[in-house]
Amino acid sequence: MFEAGEGGGPISVEHDISRPPRVTIKTVARDAGVSVAAVSKVLNNAYGVSDDMRTRVMRSVERLGYRPSFAARGMRGQTDTFGVLLIDMRNPFLADLTEGIKAGLNAAGKRMMISFGGAETVIEKSLIDAMIDMRMDGVIMVAPRLPSGELEDYARQMPTVLIGHHEPDAASFDTVNSDDERGATMAVEQLVRRGFRDIWMLCAPRRVGGHEVGDRREAGYYAAMQAAGLSDRARVVESRSETGDDPAEFSALLDALPRPGAVFSWSDIHGVPLITEARARGLRVPEDFAVVGYDNSSLARLMPVSLSSIDQQGIEVGRKAAETLLARVERGSKGRHILIPPKLVLRTSG
Amino acid sequence: MFEAGEGGGPISVEHDISRPPRVTIKTVARDAGVSVAAVSKVLNNAYGVSDDMRTRVMRSVERLGYRPSFAARGMRGQTDTFGVLLIDMRNPFLADLTEGIKAGLNAAGKRMMISFGGAETVIEKSLIDAMIDMRMDGVIMVAPRLPSGELEDYARQMPTVLIGHHEPDAASFDTVNSDDERGATMAVEQLVRRGFRDIWMLCAPRRVGGHEVGDRREAGYYAAMQAAGLSDRARVVESRSETGDDPAEFSALLDALPRPGAVFSWSDIHGVPLITEARARGLRVPEDFAVVGYDNSSLARLMPVSLSSIDQQGIEVGRKAAETLLARVERGSKGRHILIPPKLVLRTSG
Repeated sequence: MFEAGEGGGPISVEHDISRPPRVTIKTVARDAGVSVAAVSKVLNNAYGVSDDMRTRVMRSVERLGYRPSFAARGMRGQTDTFGVLLIDMRNPFLADLTEGIKAGLNAAGKRMMISFGGAETVIEKSLIDAMIDMRMDGVIMVAPRLPSGELEDYARQMPTVLIGHHEPDAASFDTVNSDDERGATMAVEQLVRRGFRDIWMLCAPRRVGGHEVGDRREAGYYAAMQAAGLSDRARVVESRSETGDDPAEFSALLDALPRPGAVFSWSDIHGVPLITEARARGLRVPEDFAVVGYDNSSLARLMPVSLSSIDQQGIEVGRKAAETLLARVERGSKGRHILIPPKLVLRTSG
Repeated sequence: MFEAGEGGGPISVEHDISRPPRVTIKTVARDAGVSVAAVSKVLNNAYGVSDDMRTRVMRSVERLGYRPSFAARGMRGQTDTFGVLLIDMRNPFLADLTEGIKAGLNAAGKRMMISFGGAETVIEKSLIDAMIDMRMDGVIMVAPRLPSGELEDYARQMPTVLIGHHEPDAASFDTVNSDDERGATMAVEQLVRRGFRDIWMLCAPRRVGGHEVGDRREAGYYAAMQAAGLSDRARVVESRSETGDDPAEFSALLDALPRPGAVFSWSDIHGVPLITEARARGLRVPEDFAVVGYDNSSLARLMPVSLSSIDQQGIEVGRKAAETLLARVERGSKGRHILIPPKLVLRTSG
């Protein structure tokens, strides 16, 4: 929606005699004998405008040669609604994240609309295009699959903040992330304190790019193993499943890992089935086998699961992303890149 | 977006000499010397239209007196995007439901945008208003808190399908639900087969209305208890928490319930903490204490939880709701009310 006076521009322009007086939405409203809100409604093709009203307003628009300052605002925004792009809803950690985003937006009187890109770049594009078409005020993308260049293209069209994507040099969008490298280091340090030396990392299926949280967590893992003098024992096991639903993988991992041995799982969605499989085998947890996950999701907290996990503070990450996006919309940004400190939450698994 | 020829109407009208020939979007495009798609873009205030293009199109619109058939389509729709209103993302069952909705919409080339009403009618209204303003093609509301009258008002403005709301007489919207009464009956029958006689029901905080899934499940519970000759032992315990996160409640329930005794939990989100609390107490499950939940969510399926549960087939419910909504948009509806048969999934809890 246009707001009253939005077309006004700096006041000095009105007195610049080299140009005709600027026609604003107020001029149109006065000419048509209707309210500014009514003009705004017609111009936005909003619901519930009578044909008569539309005719009157469009005649004044035509007569006065009024052109709403679409260019200035790129024909976007002012719907008080922000898009959020997720992969899907399968990871319970996303419940925290979206609650945080919602809280941050609602505090400023803004709305949130979520869509699922399904980790497919074609779908991601279609959804972001739709958000632009619907003139949403901005978008928060969580772990998008689009390559950096395309993200930048979109970010020039719509204020954009990314979560789960590390690119600290980017200027056209902001990023808000858990300090994934630090979190991974904390997990390894905990397992070293427990006395483990064979500490492997379980990670998600690998993708190209290098901006993913998994890459940062892997860097933290290797750094911590090196700091502990365990570089020669470091090993990263790549899962074939995004969602950790292939039990055979966990069996194979448990067969291969020396005892005592431990695993840092890049996410609770792989850590939870791994620790439950280990307990089902009768392994002594955490004496002979331990796991530390990442996310501190509701799954990890479940009493019979009791997974130690790095809390990436999803609600805080979400809220910060919303605030960063609102600041970008209001005041612009040259690229802010925020890391939220993670916390280690100890339970019985490690 | 408007599609080519959308303003054409029945062909016979064009030959009715009592009216002037109908001006369609094609007439405008021809007059302005641009494509139909370009006219559609201008009329939809879409992103990326040049000022020159807008001027040309709006002049032809004005000259020809063209009025897009907004009245016919209520100035809505044709964004190929549908809204979904959820309470939040806390209940993992919603992952199934939204996957189903998404699959149903995607199969028809449509997009989905999800928003959280937070079980607050004021927020629900704001979000549905925004969906109408953004001219979404329709909405699926899941367990909305809005009273029936207001739902009907909205359904007259935008094609609407409700999930988790039983109102089989409604004509202005369709409903798709698990057969909640049947599901509750199946849960009780299972516990009766196990030999339990003290079978209580645990339900969500109560609201007014009578259209809720909880009401139907309660009706099924009482009917099954009566059929088993156990009416005098029937007891419904109402939780104070929507999300089952008050451990004291589960303790109190376990203290009060005779042994052997069983619980039918209206949802897994209450059933899971109840069965884990019972196991933590060392109760013999399912000999002395048993639970059957509802949803067959990912929580119930987790190995260490192993909650028997009524599968309400969330993916199927979601897909059916999407198909029903698409059919309403295409062909209208006098109110279809669909019940999806539930299934009992047995695990170790009951």
